[in-house]
Amino acid sequence: MSHIIDHLQVPYYAVIFSSIHSEDLEGYREMDARMQDWVARQPGFLGFESARQAIGLTVSYWESLEAIAAWRRDPQHQQAQQQAPRWYRHYRVRICRVEREYGV
Amino acid sequence: MSHIIDHLQVPYYAVIFSSIHSEDLEGYREMDARMQDWVARQPGFLGFESARQAIGLTVSYWESLEAIAAWRRDPQHQQAQQQAPRWYRHYRVRICRVEREYGV
Repeated sequence: MSHIIDHLQVPYYAVIFSSIHSEDLEGYREMDARMQDWVARQPGFLGFESARQAIGLTVSYWESLEAIAAWRRDPQHQQAQQQAPRWYRHYRVRICRVEREYGV
Repeated sequence: MSHIIDHLQVPYYAVIFSSIHSEDLEGYREMDARMQDWVARQPGFLGFESARQAIGLTVSYWESLEAIAAWRRDPQHQQAQQQAPRWYRHYRVRICRVEREYGV
């Protein structure tokens, strides 16, 4: 992930996923790559930004809460979610409404 | 930054700062360390999470929009902001209202 998502029109929604990996990452990379492809094809998906050091942060942007809810229920995504307790020691998901943005 | 901010009560606010560094980082580390200390002492500040790879993501959490506005106007913070165009090739600031959170 090497660019910043830009020029979105407020209001829209952000999902902040903060995580700390466990030691067992078997199958994680493949699933992560698959989910990155798959999420990009979901209705209402606007883009995502991601970085990981001691903790991982992935912020995905969406047109609506309905689009976020549909993604959460998506069968392929649910298969991935089932493995979250194995790959993450700790995680937090925050659903946010973006009110304002600026930058250069 | 090595832990995840937890147990906050919605609604509260998040500032997502997405950035790409420039090549000139002179003075950046010192200022970054100073601002991390200083922001932690601001009224209404709840914590932050941060990671950097190709892009940097820093998410800070706040009790209110007023607290975010006061931090933006803080004189020491403004001194840091003045140098942003030198240290960042590109950045985006998003002000968000956190509606819901969950995790383990």
